[in-house]
Amino acid sequence: MTLNEQPAATLARKLAARDITCESLARACLERVQARESEVLAWAHLDAASVLRVAREFDRAAPEGLLWGLPIGVKDVIDTGAMPTSYGSPIYAGHRPAADAACVAMARKAGAYVFGKSATTEFATAFPAATRHPLDPLRTPGGSSSGSAAAVADCMVPLAFGTQTGGSTLRPASFCGIVGYKPTFGMINRTGVKPVADALDTLGLFARTVEDVALLAAAAAGRAELAVLAAVSAPKIGLWHGTEWVHAQPESAAAVEQAAQLLARVGSRVAEVDAPAEFAGLGDAHHDIEYFEMARGFAWERTHHAARLSPVFISRLERGSECSLDRYHAAFALAERCRRQFDALMEHCDVLLTAAAPGEAPLGLGSTGSAAFNSRWTLLHAPCIALPGFKAPSGMPVGVQLIGPRRGDRRLLAVAEFAFRLFR
Amino acid sequence: MTLNEQPAATLARKLAARDITCESLARACLERVQARESEVLAWAHLDAASVLRVAREFDRAAPEGLLWGLPIGVKDVIDTGAMPTSYGSPIYAGHRPAADAACVAMARKAGAYVFGKSATTEFATAFPAATRHPLDPLRTPGGSSSGSAAAVADCMVPLAFGTQTGGSTLRPASFCGIVGYKPTFGMINRTGVKPVADALDTLGLFARTVEDVALLAAAAAGRAELAVLAAVSAPKIGLWHGTEWVHAQPESAAAVEQAAQLLARVGSRVAEVDAPAEFAGLGDAHHDIEYFEMARGFAWERTHHAARLSPVFISRLERGSECSLDRYHAAFALAERCRRQFDALMEHCDVLLTAAAPGEAPLGLGSTGSAAFNSRWTLLHAPCIALPGFKAPSGMPVGVQLIGPRRGDRRLLAVAEFAFRLFR
Repeated sequence: MTLNEQPAATLARKLAARDITCESLARACLERVQARESEVLAWAHLDAASVLRVAREFDRAAPEGLLWGLPIGVKDVIDTGAMPTSYGSPIYAGHRPAADAACVAMARKAGAYVFGKSATTEFATAFPAATRHPLDPLRTPGGSSSGSAAAVADCMVPLAFGTQTGGSTLRPASFCGIVGYKPTFGMINRTGVKPVADALDTLGLFARTVEDVALLAAAAAGRAELAVLAAVSAPKIGLWHGTEWVHAQPESAAAVEQAAQLLARVGSRVAEVDAPAEFAGLGDAHHDIEYFEMARGFAWERTHHAARLSPVFISRLERGSECSLDRYHAAFALAERCRRQFDALMEHCDVLLTAAAPGEAPLGLGSTGSAAFNSRWTLLHAPCIALPGFKAPSGMPVGVQLIGPRRGDRRLLAVAEFAFRLFR
Repeated sequence: MTLNEQPAATLARKLAARDITCESLARACLERVQARESEVLAWAHLDAASVLRVAREFDRAAPEGLLWGLPIGVKDVIDTGAMPTSYGSPIYAGHRPAADAACVAMARKAGAYVFGKSATTEFATAFPAATRHPLDPLRTPGGSSSGSAAAVADCMVPLAFGTQTGGSTLRPASFCGIVGYKPTFGMINRTGVKPVADALDTLGLFARTVEDVALLAAAAAGRAELAVLAAVSAPKIGLWHGTEWVHAQPESAAAVEQAAQLLARVGSRVAEVDAPAEFAGLGDAHHDIEYFEMARGFAWERTHHAARLSPVFISRLERGSECSLDRYHAAFALAERCRRQFDALMEHCDVLLTAAAPGEAPLGLGSTGSAAFNSRWTLLHAPCIALPGFKAPSGMPVGVQLIGPRRGDRRLLAVAEFAFRLFR
């Protein structure tokens, strides 16, 4: 394996031991970018000369921190003080924030450096980035964290930050065949991340192994205990087929079934879970909250730069403006009731297993796909993780999703590590 | 009453009818500032020439919007694209954000304009601003929204935005003898407000009448229904003496008792409420969440500008870094349990009545006072409002606090209007 293909945890050990230089890793990543970027278009900003300069500075310093010497991709809705940050919108072309976002500052404190800014859909919403799927340029890599998922999948960087308001981390991870982790709402600080919907926005993490996303999470949350994955045997798996299951395509249904069989075969108890009736309303509640909050949160852009917003973005702002306060509040009340039902349900299993996306990455670059399998968990603030290991008849990757109890990130990561090794 | 002394609702009617000009109002406010600012020190940024220029532009345009032609104060932790925004810290001296915060853009969309940036403590936390109490320069006006409260109390502006993470709106409102309203968490969009603690930060609104804060809330939330105050007769009042009552000084205890008597005298049912036992832990939970989130949210400032952070700020970051993930998560779990108990309790009354602050504004400018009567309601995400109308033996104002059910802002505002008229 060339350096750019190796997992972050392996690289971190080699860098700390001075078995490899930061420059050699940076060069391997940059060579991959040079070979592939014209096809993948993963980056909104990438300056090879400054990446090499930073890597050489690391080589002159003493190793320190969980992520020492590792390059990370940062979705371009996340502020970086030393690089432009355009939020996927021409309104902010060339914008230079005053400071790094908290997650970036935490990762840098742990020894990582920002490799580049990865492409995002418009303000991490619907209007697509130019990014193409690394395995098939005619397909979307998913979104909104399109560049982060594609760059990690294509071995341009070992780790990347994304965000998730609906399904912007889990979906592209599933499409691209990598690990995508959305922690419990609030666990990783959002300061310096351009808000979409305050009650939903969550940092998302991309890597090619579970150990690697846990490492990035530990650094970003500033708690090393997150990187320690407890040994797991025979976890209790709740098989989830909610009302969203009507959107499951054969390849996702097959991946979930195979995953369930693999888990059962090693002694896990896999049992179907009854979806509480009220969960059927979570999709609409998610939309009400998202659009209501967008209509306020983007008031400045709408007032001063409406002509530079996409029609799909404008239509969401309009829907949000029309939503009454009573309807907005009712969506929160429903979410809270469902969170309690979800908590009760999670007393009987370690994680839920379901589809991570409707199916393989769809053909075409006009849409980044559906968040039907993600938005309810985002609204419930539950941690979830997309795991690779399955394939569609086309040969494209298909992921499955594990969902942990709220604030049960360590349990989820431990079970995910167990399942990840089983699935690959 | 000179124009600067009149309520926002009155001024809005006169401006819309062209009975007064925007310029005449701006001049009245600027004259008050000129007479008083050297003593009060309410402003972090104020440019009289540009205020007059903007006011004259309004006079040439057609009136439109709930707040047309009204000047508002904006706490300097809230971004303004056209004015510097320093977050109360030398680290950001002269900083110019790319855009207006959402609440500012919404207020401007409703026809208001930004009069100036009001002084804040360091990043809306403990280290005080220079601002002095308008009625006694030896006393703090309270904080962290020190300038917003003092400017409204001193009739420099009719309306101002603040924020509240602990007691940063209710406390200064109580000290200064004005109305301070902290809406239900999330109801007014926080985009462009410098975060302190993501799970706690809430916009706060200052005015000299309840009708006025409701008007500002309606504009900021983009829902005109918030400005319509339902008629109330004989509301059911729950008298609240939680474990924090040990901090109540005689003047606050007397204000609450007088308020209860006034309400009872007009037929309200005023009944003592039993404080659930678990509420005693909310103060510590609030601190755990606040400091944990600060330690991440200010990672950039701590890494690059530690020498320009105050010692009290640094010590909070250190406490937050030491807090384990389990402890942080336990604080959320407690808050959620208490929210459910609070919801149950609020089925039996319209609002709770308690102290808004321990007592009158304390002497000295080294501290902005205690949030003991506020931080639990902030953590519970409940809407609350400080109402003036009472006095300490010293002659200083003392407020009382009404707390509404979560998402029951319209009910709270309606009862507050009823009580406000009764108390004054």
